[in-house]
Amino acid sequence: MSEIDAVADRYVAAVYAKDEAAFLSLYDQDVVVFDMWDQWSYKGREAWSGMVRSWFGSLGNESVRVTFTREMCAVDDEWAVWCGVVRYAGLSAEGAELRAMENRISWSLRRRGDRWLIVHEHSSSPADFKTMKVSFNRDGTGAQGV
Amino acid sequence: MSEIDAVADRYVAAVYAKDEAAFLSLYDQDVVVFDMWDQWSYKGREAWSGMVRSWFGSLGNESVRVTFTREMCAVDDEWAVWCGVVRYAGLSAEGAELRAMENRISWSLRRRGDRWLIVHEHSSSPADFKTMKVSFNRDGTGAQGV
Repeated sequence: MSEIDAVADRYVAAVYAKDEAAFLSLYDQDVVVFDMWDQWSYKGREAWSGMVRSWFGSLGNESVRVTFTREMCAVDDEWAVWCGVVRYAGLSAEGAELRAMENRISWSLRRRGDRWLIVHEHSSSPADFKTMKVSFNRDGTGAQGV
Repeated sequence: MSEIDAVADRYVAAVYAKDEAAFLSLYDQDVVVFDMWDQWSYKGREAWSGMVRSWFGSLGNESVRVTFTREMCAVDDEWAVWCGVVRYAGLSAEGAELRAMENRISWSLRRRGDRWLIVHEHSSSPADFKTMKVSFNRDGTGAQGV
């Protein structure tokens, strides 16, 4: 279980550093990603790298602090599933929190040698059935986008 | 792989029949569900059963035809991951299609004896970054809710 939490820790560090290579190294070559935003799916690390470059490139002198709260984790010799809440906080150049949002995130991982790689990621927030708008706070108190 | 497609087939049959017991029998006792609508998460089959009862109970004399399009499937002895597109079509009592929507769906499954059970489900549709509204059609041509 701690091995998968270590993947989450590397995700946090890669996003904070806006390090595209470190971020992409968490993903399998053939990863399928169902992302929260805009595009229906990303197939393969190459397709996913475009989103990452665009995300990190949009941040200017801000940075993003990620916090994970695990809801479920099950690990076998070769397979793992991990899901929980991911909180993205936008930080000013001085480190002040400007805004934040929460999503749900699910990972399926496979062991490749001594590393665990994400073979499938699904992130989302639940939609309100009346307004069709997504919510960004698990407590339902509202939040702003990052 | 065909074993997991068989789970999808049982899902289709259970929804069409509005058979709550058959539907819930696809899920592990401790399943965690991140559903498309309203609630942040459902923990355990008992919690999930409330959504199912409410869904099937809301249909009146309509029924729902589910179609899955697989995007990825990987199966080991004890573990499987399956993801793709799920299309829900609302049918009149006479069987005419009234409306339809598509979601993305991901399953993690675990073998329990001779059955595969869903231990984690995540369904969603991507949200538009400007409007925060979800889209229900993978081709982006718009669709109505079911």
